[in-house]
Amino acid sequence: MSETQPARAEDTDPTPVAEPIPEGDDGGYDPAASSLQGAVDSAVMRELLAVRGSIDNIDATLVYLLAERFKATQRVGHLKARHRLPAGDPGREKAQIARLRRLAEEAQLDPAFAEKFLNFIISEVIRHHEAISQNHQQDPARQQRP
Amino acid sequence: MSETQPARAEDTDPTPVAEPIPEGDDGGYDPAASSLQGAVDSAVMRELLAVRGSIDNIDATLVYLLAERFKATQRVGHLKARHRLPAGDPGREKAQIARLRRLAEEAQLDPAFAEKFLNFIISEVIRHHEAISQNHQQDPARQQRP
Repeated sequence: MSETQPARAEDTDPTPVAEPIPEGDDGGYDPAASSLQGAVDSAVMRELLAVRGSIDNIDATLVYLLAERFKATQRVGHLKARHRLPAGDPGREKAQIARLRRLAEEAQLDPAFAEKFLNFIISEVIRHHEAISQNHQQDPARQQRP
Repeated sequence: MSETQPARAEDTDPTPVAEPIPEGDDGGYDPAASSLQGAVDSAVMRELLAVRGSIDNIDATLVYLLAERFKATQRVGHLKARHRLPAGDPGREKAQIARLRRLAEEAQLDPAFAEKFLNFIISEVIRHHEAISQNHQQDPARQQRP
């Protein structure tokens, strides 16, 4: 295929990570948005944007993964509400923290940060569990759905 | 293979998700650890442990993904330190928050939580950037490595 003959959209390769996406193609997100624009050497800015492209991909993955985690904890919340079990489980949380600290060390992530992160998530989960439990007490029939 | 003859770590298959891992095989982690043990109907406990197995897998993925994200932001930190750029970038952060809120909606995750999560991560990143910048000012030559 000649270089002057562009392929149809469905034939082209996915846009490489470091290529800025034209504004408006991604719900208005500008991957080059920065308070540093214009104040920095263009080669430095290119290097910065390349790494930021990877960070953006990781962030999207984190959001979808967290959504999936909350789906799972919602299931736990409904199970606990149906059987009138407490929202928190200190024995479980202690084991989770020890495991995540160990995994963090393996991944070269600060174990103290991993613990802070899990506590951040767990406090949100407990808030959800308490809300589910309250709804359940108000209307137990509504919570019987799987 | 007999239970008294443990395989070498590198020979064993990955343990399936829902199967409880015998204590001691996973750095002492007990996936059935719970303050509810014995106080709950065994069928309910089984259902709870099945969901918790998935949560544990998601958590391991989150830890490895966060480790990778911090590797990327460390690169940004060194780049910023070398070129004496500020640790934070409000223009970038504003665009990131708007994008993650939109992605959260698509993933059926609370957008307010996604924003809180990004702020939690960014504050850790800025702490790292400031530490890198301080080290760099103390010993600029040491930071020239890619």
